[in-house]
Amino acid sequence: MQTLTVDLGDRSYPIHIGGGLLERVDLIVPHLPQPRAAIVTNTTVGPLYLERLTKTLAGAGVQVIPIVLPDGEAYKNWETLNLIFDALLTHRAERKTTLIALGGGVIGDLTGFAAASYQRGVPFIQVPTTLLAQVDSSVGGKTGINHPLGKNMIGAFYQPRLVLADTDTLNTLPERELSAGLAEVIKYGLIRDLPFLEWLEANMDKLVARETEALAYAIYHSCRNKAEVVAADEREAGQRALLNLGHTFGHAIEAGMGYGNWLHGEAVAAGTMLAADLSRRMGLISAADVARIEALLRRAKLPTVAPNLGAEVYLNYMGVDKKVEAGKLRFVLFRRVGEAFVTGDVAPELLRQTLTEAARG
Amino acid sequence: MQTLTVDLGDRSYPIHIGGGLLERVDLIVPHLPQPRAAIVTNTTVGPLYLERLTKTLAGAGVQVIPIVLPDGEAYKNWETLNLIFDALLTHRAERKTTLIALGGGVIGDLTGFAAASYQRGVPFIQVPTTLLAQVDSSVGGKTGINHPLGKNMIGAFYQPRLVLADTDTLNTLPERELSAGLAEVIKYGLIRDLPFLEWLEANMDKLVARETEALAYAIYHSCRNKAEVVAADEREAGQRALLNLGHTFGHAIEAGMGYGNWLHGEAVAAGTMLAADLSRRMGLISAADVARIEALLRRAKLPTVAPNLGAEVYLNYMGVDKKVEAGKLRFVLFRRVGEAFVTGDVAPELLRQTLTEAARG
Ligand SMILES: NC(=O)c1ccc[n+]([C@@H]2O[C@H](COP(=O)([O-])OP(=O)(O)OC[C@H]3O[C@@H](n4cnc5c(N)ncnc54)[C@H](O)[C@@H]3O)[C@@H](O)[C@H]2O)c1
Ligand SMILES: NC(=O)c1ccc[n+]([C@@H]2O[C@H](COP(=O)([O-])OP(=O)(O)OC[C@H]3O[C@@H](n4cnc5c(N)ncnc54)[C@H](O)[C@@H]3O)[C@@H](O)[C@H]2O)c1
Ligand SMILES: [Zn+2]
Ligand SMILES: [Zn+2]
Repeated sequence: MQTLTVDLGDRSYPIHIGGGLLERVDLIVPHLPQPRAAIVTNTTVGPLYLERLTKTLAGAGVQVIPIVLPDGEAYKNWETLNLIFDALLTHRAERKTTLIALGGGVIGDLTGFAAASYQRGVPFIQVPTTLLAQVDSSVGGKTGINHPLGKNMIGAFYQPRLVLADTDTLNTLPERELSAGLAEVIKYGLIRDLPFLEWLEANMDKLVARETEALAYAIYHSCRNKAEVVAADEREAGQRALLNLGHTFGHAIEAGMGYGNWLHGEAVAAGTMLAADLSRRMGLISAADVARIEALLRRAKLPTVAPNLGAEVYLNYMGVDKKVEAGKLRFVLFRRVGEAFVTGDVAPELLRQTLTEAARG
Repeated sequence: MQTLTVDLGDRSYPIHIGGGLLERVDLIVPHLPQPRAAIVTNTTVGPLYLERLTKTLAGAGVQVIPIVLPDGEAYKNWETLNLIFDALLTHRAERKTTLIALGGGVIGDLTGFAAASYQRGVPFIQVPTTLLAQVDSSVGGKTGINHPLGKNMIGAFYQPRLVLADTDTLNTLPERELSAGLAEVIKYGLIRDLPFLEWLEANMDKLVARETEALAYAIYHSCRNKAEVVAADEREAGQRALLNLGHTFGHAIEAGMGYGNWLHGEAVAAGTMLAADLSRRMGLISAADVARIEALLRRAKLPTVAPNLGAEVYLNYMGVDKKVEAGKLRFVLFRRVGEAFVTGDVAPELLRQTLTEAARG
C-alpha cells in the first residue's frame, strides 16, 4: 500500500492506494467520529463490493446504513440526492454519522454533495471503484449534481477525510471505463510531469493488462499530481485550470454527440488531440509531438480523432462552458509535451481550422 | 448608519444598519466582482422593495436578474431552490454573478444555499427585510432548506460579503412578525448581555412603536452579540449553542401546534419561559427573575405561556431535535438573568414538572 497526503491545512487527508484495502478496517475506523456510517453505492457496484465493506466495518462494531442508488450519470440529480437524504433522515443519521461513497465518480460526486449539505456538513470518506474516480474525481473536493440546464452546476467544495483506492476493485471494471480513466492519467503526464509521461509510454501495455503494480504506480502519481495542483490552488483560480486539458473540447464532444454516447475520458482524449493540433498550428509544438501524444492515447485504446460536428456546433457548446470569463474563452494548450498553460489568446482562424480539419471523425 | 464587522478572517464582512440603505449604491457596488446581480425576493416583498433596489443598482450600471419566489416557509424547499437555479442558468449567470437576498429569513436561507451551491459558490449579499432576519438569520452563515422529514436539514455554512439592514423596510412588517423578531433581540440580552437587556427594559415601548433610532440600536447590539458568538465559534461546538435559548422547547411548540400556527419567535418566547421555569426549579434563578423575563416578553407583545401539549408530546419532539448528541439532550438554561449556559444535566422529574405545570396555555 502507498499513501499520500493532500495538503490543505487542517482539512488535509490521506489517500491510500493498493490491493485489499476494502478489508482494512484499521485504515477506516480511526476516521469515524461515531461507530455509525452510511455506505452509498449503486445497483452495479453494490452487488460486487457492498457486502465486503459492510463486513469490514461491522467487524469493528460499526453500524452500517446501506443506501443503494440507481446506476448512471442520468441519476446524478436532485431526485437521487434526495434518496440519500430520505435514507439518512429515516435512519436518524446524526452530525457525526460518516457518509462513505463506494463507486465511481457519479457516486462520489452525489455522496460528497450529500455529505456537504446534510445538516450543513457531516464526515465523508471516498472509496472510489473506477480508475477515473481513483485518479481524478475522488481527489480535490469537488462534489455536485447535474441540472437539466447544465452538468455539475449545483454542488460544493467539500473535502473527504480519507480516500481508499483499492486497486482490486478495478478487476471488474468494463474495458471502456478503464481506458476512459487512462485518459485522465495521461493528462497528468502531459500537463506537468514529463517523467511520469515517459513512464506511461514505457508501461502502457501493463496498465491496459491491469497489472496491479503498474496500476498502483499510475494511480499514485496521478493523485500526487492532482493533489499538488489542488493544494496550490483549491478553488481553481490559476493552476487548477490546467486539469482541464482537452476538457473544453471534450465537453463539446460529449454534448454534441449526445451525453452518454462518448464516455467523458474518451471525449477528453479526442479533445486533447484538438488541443495538440491547435498548439501545433500556433507554432507551440511540432507535428512529431502531436504524433507522440496520439500514439500514447491510442495504446490506451482511446479515440484520437474528434467527431466532425462542424465548427459552429463546437463553438456553440464551448461558449456555454463554465470556463467562460466575461465572455472570453480560455484554452489549455501545450507549451511542450509535458507542460501545458492557459491562454485566452487564440487566433479565431486557427481555432476554426482545428475544428474543421482536425475534428474529422 | 452604523457598521459592524463579523470577524471571520479572510471571510470577514460588514453589516450596515440604518435608514435609506436600499438607495446606497456606494455600499453595494464595491462588493460586486461583476456588474451583474440576481435579486431573489418573494411575492410579498418584491412589490414593496424590488423596484427600489433594482433602480439603485441599475443607476450604477449593474444588470439585474429579478427572481420572485412564492412567499412562505412551506416554499423553503428543493422545488423553490430549483426555481433560483433555473433562472440563473436561463440567464447564464456566471461564477462572478452576485446573488442578493431581499426578504425575510426564508428568502435569506434559500438564497444563501443557492449561492453556496450554484457552480459550487458565487458571491452573496443579504438585504434582510424582517426584524428576525436583520438580527438573526442574516448573520452567522447558516443557510438551507427544509426536507419533508426535518426543518433546515439540508444546507451549507456560507458567509455573505455584505449585510444591508435597512430599518425603513420594517415599516411595512406585520405586527406579529415584528414581535417575533423582538423575541430573538431579547434573547441576546438574556444569554450574555445584561446592559443590553436593561436598555431593552427601558426602551421596549419605542421598539414596539418602531422608532427608527431605537430599532437601529437594538439591531446593532443584536448583530454584535451574534457576530461575537459566531466569530468565536463558527461551527457551533460551544458558545453558539447559547443562541438556542428557548429553541429546543420552541421547536416542540412549533411542531406540536402544527407548523405555521405559531411564529418561530412566538414559540421561542414561550420556550424561553419554559427554560426560565426549569432554571427556577433547579434553583438557578428566582421567581422574581422569571417574572422579570416574562414582563419584558409581554411588553414585546409575545406569548409567555407555552401550550399544554402534554409532557410526552414535548419530549417526543425534543428528542428528534438536532441538538441531540449520542442520544443525550442538551439544554440552554439561565445561570442568572443576562447569562445562559448549556447543560445535559437536568433531572427528568423537574423537566416533567416544567412541561406539565408551566406549559399550561
Ligand atoms: N468531482 C470531480 O472532481 C470529478 C472529476 C472528474 C469527473 N467527475 C464526475 O465523475 C463522473 C464520472 O465518473 P466515472 O467515470 O467513475 O463514472 P461512473 O461513476 O458512472 O462509473 C462508470 C460505470 O462503472 C460502474 N462501476 C464502478 N465501479 C465499478 C467496478 N469496480 N466494477 C464494475 N463496474 C463499476 C459504474 O456503476 C458505472 O456504471 C461524472 O459524473 C463526472 O462529472 C467528477
Ligand atoms: N440562517 C439562520 O441562522 C436562521 C436563524 C433564524 C431563523 N432562520 C430561518 O428564518 C426563517 C424565518 O424568517 P422570518 O421570520 O424573516 O420569516 P419570513 O421570511 O417568512 O418573513 C415573514 C413574512 O414577512 C414578509 N415580509 C418580509 N419582509 C417584509 C417587509 N419588510 N414588509 C412586509 N412583509 C415582509 C415575508 O414575505 C413573510 O410573509 C425560518 O425559515 C427560519 O428557519 C434562519
Ligand atoms: Zn475529466
Ligand atoms: Zn430563532
